[in-house]
Amino acid sequence: MLEEWLAPKAAALESRGLTRRLRARAADERLIDLAGNDYLGLASDPRVIEAAADAVRVWGTGSTASRLVTGTTALHEEIESSLADYVGQESALVFSSGYLANLGVVTALGGPGTLLVSDEHVHASLVDACRLSRSRVEIVPHNDVDAVTKVLAERNEPHAVVMTESVFSVLSDAAPLTELAAAARAHDAVLLVDEAHGLGVTGEGRGSVHAAGLAGLDHVIVTMTLSKAMASQGGVVLGPALVRAHLINRARSFIYDTGLNPAACAAALAALQVLKNEPERPLAIHTATARLASACDVPAASGPVVSVPMPGPRETVQAAELCLAGGVRVGSFRPPSVPDGISRLRLTAHAGLTDADLDQACDVISRAIQDVS
Amino acid sequence: MLEEWLAPKAAALESRGLTRRLRARAADERLIDLAGNDYLGLASDPRVIEAAADAVRVWGTGSTASRLVTGTTALHEEIESSLADYVGQESALVFSSGYLANLGVVTALGGPGTLLVSDEHVHASLVDACRLSRSRVEIVPHNDVDAVTKVLAERNEPHAVVMTESVFSVLSDAAPLTELAAAARAHDAVLLVDEAHGLGVTGEGRGSVHAAGLAGLDHVIVTMTLSKAMASQGGVVLGPALVRAHLINRARSFIYDTGLNPAACAAALAALQVLKNEPERPLAIHTATARLASACDVPAASGPVVSVPMPGPRETVQAAELCLAGGVRVGSFRPPSVPDGISRLRLTAHAGLTDADLDQACDVISRAIQDVS
Ligand SMILES: Cc1ncc(COP(=O)(O)O)c(C=O)c1O
Ligand SMILES: Cc1ncc(COP(=O)(O)O)c(C=O)c1O
Repeated sequence: MLEEWLAPKAAALESRGLTRRLRARAADERLIDLAGNDYLGLASDPRVIEAAADAVRVWGTGSTASRLVTGTTALHEEIESSLADYVGQESALVFSSGYLANLGVVTALGGPGTLLVSDEHVHASLVDACRLSRSRVEIVPHNDVDAVTKVLAERNEPHAVVMTESVFSVLSDAAPLTELAAAARAHDAVLLVDEAHGLGVTGEGRGSVHAAGLAGLDHVIVTMTLSKAMASQGGVVLGPALVRAHLINRARSFIYDTGLNPAACAAALAALQVLKNEPERPLAIHTATARLASACDVPAASGPVVSVPMPGPRETVQAAELCLAGGVRVGSFRPPSVPDGISRLRLTAHAGLTDADLDQACDVISRAIQDVS
Repeated sequence: MLEEWLAPKAAALESRGLTRRLRARAADERLIDLAGNDYLGLASDPRVIEAAADAVRVWGTGSTASRLVTGTTALHEEIESSLADYVGQESALVFSSGYLANLGVVTALGGPGTLLVSDEHVHASLVDACRLSRSRVEIVPHNDVDAVTKVLAERNEPHAVVMTESVFSVLSDAAPLTELAAAARAHDAVLLVDEAHGLGVTGEGRGSVHAAGLAGLDHVIVTMTLSKAMASQGGVVLGPALVRAHLINRARSFIYDTGLNPAACAAALAALQVLKNEPERPLAIHTATARLASACDVPAASGPVVSVPMPGPRETVQAAELCLAGGVRVGSFRPPSVPDGISRLRLTAHAGLTDADLDQACDVISRAIQDVS
């Protein structure tokens, strides 16, 4: 039954060279990793590891239920208050993933009385959130503040939420946050900024919203993930305390989902502590992206990612294989994971890269690109 | 801005006695817990805890990226193959939560060519999945096989998926799986069964689909969560291998989400091992539900939950407070978390309850119910 339905689809993907397969990484591999999102290099930091190990001993291995039932521990409250404090927000609420945090906040604010205005490049979780929201959705051209202003001004809905990422996930370019916040303010709208790739990276670690002086404003909401620079798992919505209270009561992906596991809470908390104590860590990310960008002959982006357009999906995979053979793991992004349809290598920089790592990486990657082009 | 928007909503909830608040549990509390979903009592089992602690040392605290990039480890593969083997399925795919597993499988099979037929009592994650799917959705009365058959027979879509839970999450009653599977088979449809509350509980632990002899059929797909009996976090979709391959390529909540953290994988794997070695554990759940149900004068359900209808939301909260004062934590479910609109106490049984615990619990709960009625 499922065979007749799905096998032809699998064959169609295969023939276009687009089949995705899982490949497990080894625990002891000696690759230079430019594919993961452990931007601060903290997922293997002994302090973060021991915090997670301690947490499972104290709190157990699961949170055991929804945050509203038995799923809230002191660890959840601690990471919420520490992170809110660090990025300058009044409050924070932890979800079990960044994906569910985005679904939760958008659906809780969405509905027939709310217009959603979304940048065309936002992450899949925000796209799904729009679809799920029962709101009218206007997709606007990438980083186009005039287009945002126009749809806000022309709307009939009493409420509106403008959605963007501070640092876009694939191209790693920045959103015009100051202008968007002003446009939202002028038209009585909320600005929702996904800082998945901003936390720990931009604004000396505190993210782009903080750097732009927008943290704590009463029309700005931020989402973050604990799965990238925070070396863990989980998602967070930050903003005014009444947003937090609203989500506790209305966000289905919060209410009907098991709370984040204690090990993940503790790891994120420890990673945040390291970042606070070692404020120079984010700098190393930018040094690395600058070197990688220059080796690949592309402009350096504001975020942690260097994005290298390639001729097509097959060349992308081939180049990534060559890099792997040279001891360097890079990301290869193909449709539909690229906002503009262009296959590309995606190199993520992290704070743990040494000079020697970067020398080798620049050498291997630039040769791989030449070889397949 | 947000103040004017959200404050009136908060006031409206408050006036109806429906405001939800978070209360953190303490690490060392000495309550009898009948609210969490740690059905096998393994979240605090030293074997499970040490497995999680070891995993963070070997694999780090986060999976570092999407399962398709660097987010897959040997632990992910191990829990997938062990669990598939245990419940009699060909393959399994791990998501970062049960919520996202449900969204992933339904949206990947959904679309204009697929009719979704959903029991009216299914979990919020499946309801959201329907909304997100872009399919036509038919909601059928609870456990009504004739209604399912009728909409399947009358459909124009080439494909159809019938959605149910093996053990429903709030009322803990069972679905007529054999009949539903036959109806699906007769009408060239897929049966999707959410075994969130079946795994580790029914079918001697292997779930209701296995018990009904439906595991491994080529038109049956199962979803499970690792956050309840498996004492951890995460979700799983199980079924034919080509379903797994399809999800890897099409399920947005898999592709665009960070992989489950290593500690959670390892904890679930260890919990599953304990369950395999101690096959008598699920029995203790049923003994406990039978005693609790009889004390509350309600019929014992097939699942791990005893559901006690209450006069209203306020009485429900009051009774739960009385139980807490008596050393027993119970769940209090109010609209919109109840499928039939009836507020209720929700008592979850778990394998770690002693006879003395059950004596105390039965006594405290039955008095609390009397006191508020
Ligand atoms: C911009 C953006 N938002 C949200 C997410 C989802 O976060 P998570 O993986 O923690 O679910 C991601 C990446 O995974 C992302 O890149
Ligand atoms: C029936 C059912 N399906 C799915 C879920 C979601 O699982 P998770 O909490 O692991 O996201 C739950 C409970 O949380 C549930 O009760």
